[in-house]
Amino acid sequence: MIENIKRFLIGKPLESEEIEGQKYSVLWGLPILASDAISSVAYAGEEILRVLVPVIGLLAFSQLTLLTLLIIGLLFILTLLDMQTIRCYPNGGGSYIVASTNLGVIPGLTAGAALVIDYTLTVAVSISAAAAAITSALPSLLPYNVPICLLLLIVIMIGNLRGIRESSRMFSFPTYIFIISILIMIVVGIVDYFLGIKHPVVPTEVLTNQLGSVSLILLLSAFSNGCTAITGLEAVSNAVPNFKAPQVKNARKVLVLVAVCVCVIFGGVSVLARLYQITPTADKTVLSMIASHIFGYNFMYYLIQATTAILLAMAANTSFSGFPMLVSLISKNGYAPRQLSARGDRLSFSNGIIALAIMAAILIIVFHGSTTKLIPLYAIGVFLAFTLSQFGMLKKWLNERGDHWLHFAVRNAFGATVTSAVVVIIAITKFRHGAWIVIIVIPILILLMLKVKKHYLDVGNHLRVPAEAIEEGRIPNDRYVNHVIVPVESINRASLRALKYARSISDNIIAFNVSIDEEHGAKVKERFDLLNTGIPLIVKYSPYRKIVGPLIEFIQSEEYGITKGNIITVVLPEFIVEKWWQRLLHNQTGKYLSKQLLKHKGIVIATIPLQLKEKLPEYHN
Amino acid sequence: MIENIKRFLIGKPLESEEIEGQKYSVLWGLPILASDAISSVAYAGEEILRVLVPVIGLLAFSQLTLLTLLIIGLLFILTLLDMQTIRCYPNGGGSYIVASTNLGVIPGLTAGAALVIDYTLTVAVSISAAAAAITSALPSLLPYNVPICLLLLIVIMIGNLRGIRESSRMFSFPTYIFIISILIMIVVGIVDYFLGIKHPVVPTEVLTNQLGSVSLILLLSAFSNGCTAITGLEAVSNAVPNFKAPQVKNARKVLVLVAVCVCVIFGGVSVLARLYQITPTADKTVLSMIASHIFGYNFMYYLIQATTAILLAMAANTSFSGFPMLVSLISKNGYAPRQLSARGDRLSFSNGIIALAIMAAILIIVFHGSTTKLIPLYAIGVFLAFTLSQFGMLKKWLNERGDHWLHFAVRNAFGATVTSAVVVIIAITKFRHGAWIVIIVIPILILLMLKVKKHYLDVGNHLRVPAEAIEEGRIPNDRYVNHVIVPVESINRASLRALKYARSISDNIIAFNVSIDEEHGAKVKERFDLLNTGIPLIVKYSPYRKIVGPLIEFIQSEEYGITKGNIITVVLPEFIVEKWWQRLLHNQTGKYLSKQLLKHKGIVIATIPLQLKEKLPEYHN
Repeated sequence: MIENIKRFLIGKPLESEEIEGQKYSVLWGLPILASDAISSVAYAGEEILRVLVPVIGLLAFSQLTLLTLLIIGLLFILTLLDMQTIRCYPNGGGSYIVASTNLGVIPGLTAGAALVIDYTLTVAVSISAAAAAITSALPSLLPYNVPICLLLLIVIMIGNLRGIRESSRMFSFPTYIFIISILIMIVVGIVDYFLGIKHPVVPTEVLTNQLGSVSLILLLSAFSNGCTAITGLEAVSNAVPNFKAPQVKNARKVLVLVAVCVCVIFGGVSVLARLYQITPTADKTVLSMIASHIFGYNFMYYLIQATTAILLAMAANTSFSGFPMLVSLISKNGYAPRQLSARGDRLSFSNGIIALAIMAAILIIVFHGSTTKLIPLYAIGVFLAFTLSQFGMLKKWLNERGDHWLHFAVRNAFGATVTSAVVVIIAITKFRHGAWIVIIVIPILILLMLKVKKHYLDVGNHLRVPAEAIEEGRIPNDRYVNHVIVPVESINRASLRALKYARSISDNIIAFNVSIDEEHGAKVKERFDLLNTGIPLIVKYSPYRKIVGPLIEFIQSEEYGITKGNIITVVLPEFIVEKWWQRLLHNQTGKYLSKQLLKHKGIVIATIPLQLKEKLPEYHN
Repeated sequence: MIENIKRFLIGKPLESEEIEGQKYSVLWGLPILASDAISSVAYAGEEILRVLVPVIGLLAFSQLTLLTLLIIGLLFILTLLDMQTIRCYPNGGGSYIVASTNLGVIPGLTAGAALVIDYTLTVAVSISAAAAAITSALPSLLPYNVPICLLLLIVIMIGNLRGIRESSRMFSFPTYIFIISILIMIVVGIVDYFLGIKHPVVPTEVLTNQLGSVSLILLLSAFSNGCTAITGLEAVSNAVPNFKAPQVKNARKVLVLVAVCVCVIFGGVSVLARLYQITPTADKTVLSMIASHIFGYNFMYYLIQATTAILLAMAANTSFSGFPMLVSLISKNGYAPRQLSARGDRLSFSNGIIALAIMAAILIIVFHGSTTKLIPLYAIGVFLAFTLSQFGMLKKWLNERGDHWLHFAVRNAFGATVTSAVVVIIAITKFRHGAWIVIIVIPILILLMLKVKKHYLDVGNHLRVPAEAIEEGRIPNDRYVNHVIVPVESINRASLRALKYARSISDNIIAFNVSIDEEHGAKVKERFDLLNTGIPLIVKYSPYRKIVGPLIEFIQSEEYGITKGNIITVVLPEFIVEKWWQRLLHNQTGKYLSKQLLKHKGIVIATIPLQLKEKLPEYHN
């Protein structure tokens, strides 16, 4: 039944060869990778104004233009540099791969940890914002904010478990509709302004009375907020292997298109905010106020509001595409659990998708699905990763010294300088508001990844058989001396079958009974003797009602006297029931016994199943 | 580490013989079994007034006296009849045992189900009431009502897991302090009234203006509410085996003492309410108003309030003693999962205790820890059980016809009539308010219990070996023909060891490799051939990345050609890690494979463990 539900939700399994058909074209790849970057215009410009307006009033609008140009410039630089990174590293991974290849393990893991945090935050922030959009439209749902977040999360998770292509289809249309309607709004808004059809909002007293001065720290703080517009760009370089061939060319095309979209929409919205002197209020977003000012409360207004909400949820989807790809790369290098690099039934990295959903769910529950509380943790991770990527590329040129190396090195040195500066600015201006959490979590993640790697190395070394030993035929084809112990609770078909199996794998057999009271033990002994098996039965009395202890004690005792290097097989019957609830009716002594015994050296557990529907020997005649 | 936490919370394990030392004396048994019954005076009288006062005003007080006398009469009858039941059934179980022994399976299970529901409700109601007492004293805790309930529940659960005697000690003092302080209040209150030191409260306008008439349905509804005073009495007869020898005598002593306590306290509080004309208000309990009227807000007042709160939590404890005993009896008869009849480390029925805690936690969460919503479900279960017990005793006398049988039969027939009447009254007056839930749940529980019994019967029949077959030596000491399959993922120490083990248990061995890509399969084949094992290696390519399917297919294929009745042992290496987090780093393919294979007939799984710290052969030189 569980299997059927899974099939219904996730779809039928796909063969490994079908993977080519599941990859992105430019048309379907753009919306899936762009939604994170594009959706941030829903709040980036607004967050700049929220810092500036209360201090410097109307002056904020001229500073908005300046900061918008700065951020678009930054976007331009990062896009150009990223295009080269994609060409050099066509197997995806972006910052993580670039940093670990060129700068070493720790910088690589730092970039990896920063991106892991960023992806998780993107999911939590976007879903919280989308839920806020829903609950502000339907206030009666407000008490169910967290459940709504989790529901959205589950829907997006299932969409992604269905596989790459289907999720991109499912999520593509709203992105395109959003882009088109915002573009229409920008064009209509600008034309109307210059034709004099629409006029600026009359400034309120609050705005004209502000007389604070434009300080550097104020501008930097506003700039930090604006940088959220650029987050999401990294998704493209991480996802190169998900593109259809020619991968590099398609990925670069998508990267440029994403950058152009962000630039036009972010810039256009800033222009409109300035022309119409729109300032954010407590209960209305800048985007919503611009739309209502230009269109009034008609169809276009509601279309923009609805697609904004959907797009914010879609932004979470970008992470669901990028995160599993990133952790599968980290996992292939041995720094994350191996399961994260296995493709599921539908060829998506199911475990990575589920892991991301769980982490985001925890964040949403802890922060009560509040965007405001989550935003300050954001952006620092992604800019840290950008910085490490730039330093990695710089190091690459310095090492390789190929054609034009100096030219490239200067470009990346510039990139590294700019992104480092942004990291420092964000860390300082947002430290108190939550950035400190990220600064603590990154080293913890790095330590965990190093521990994982160490474990895999230990296991690998432990298991490895030297190739020479095989080639030179030095592996002996020998066998163990096998002793068998059959725990006998009472004389029934299950224990008779275990004894029969024991006889077929060894001649050194002992039956072993642990009784809670002595009476029961004597009864078992009496019936066992009637069987004339020739197998000795050891009866032990266990005052603490424990079974494992006496058995282990016996195995290690002089009485049993096993030579070192011999092996002991313990035969355990296991009742296999048909329905899940029937399992609750059998105490799991066998399971527990087997788990405890397997901790000891030289013990093999032979589990002999017994199905209720199975026909057993009759012993009549 | 988990083991250490468990030891710290629960205490060291006790030997089975120590059970005598863990049983109740009269002194310690009284508080533990009485707290449920006694704590109900905190609300029983009040609930009568809450029904009467709004309709008939001051007339309510004369009706209160009448109803109090009726309920005390009922208590008296039930106590007398229960004393005889304890003598006839000294092994505990009360109504469940009496009904199932004399009336048959279904009435027995009905009584069992009714009691199970009643115990669970007692826990949920008492804990909710205690939490309400805490949150009304500290209103800032109000938003954490449910967490506080769950915390109390956990504390009481742990106390009970520590074992019988310790829990009775831990919970005894507050009960005695409560009883003594209430008795002081009753004496002081009555004396003061007749000496004219204290005067009745002046009736408010609301009271004197009420002119409704005393209808039968009104009195019955008030009576239903008052019957909650008697709930808890059943705990004694269910817990007889928990008493120190002489069990029957001690149990009967405790039963009488409980009845006397309830009678005096319930009666005394009713008298005080009538003398001083105390009526419940929205935010104050009758008990609290009486206490403050008699003592003022001094130490005695706060002592009574505090011990009331504690006693309500203790009432939950009564269920934690009765419920596990009851379900262990049901479980011994095969109608509930067998684990419920196993005593834990500290000789209490740990599984029953945990099951009760979980069910009560669910009720608390679903009903948001609200006493008001839970109360209407209450009392019907326990009176249904009383009724079945009375009918059972009646049937017993009719069947046995021993000395004085007619005398006894008449007594129980009278008991049966009275308790049936109470069930009908409660069912009618409380049906709409929640009693219907209980009426639906009881048959569902009965069906579940019958299903469990059927499963155990099936399993028992399946496993049973006829005694004659053993005695007549008809059981053959034969053996299986054993074929071995060793799944080989790659050539490493684990697979080499599996092959070595395979050689020691059979001469029919096949190595089996499932590869995701053909290249890997060919590489494994090449290295395997170098080993010169003489064992054939089968390589299968699995396009869906599944391992179980191809293996099962192969086993059932003509290619393998296993004769029916032969057995196949699949040898699976399992990596045993030291730390729990390391387990997350290994994918559980082996576990999954073994679970799937065990569903098939004639397959044995031999798990061969590999510890990381273990020294493996070096294969050098």
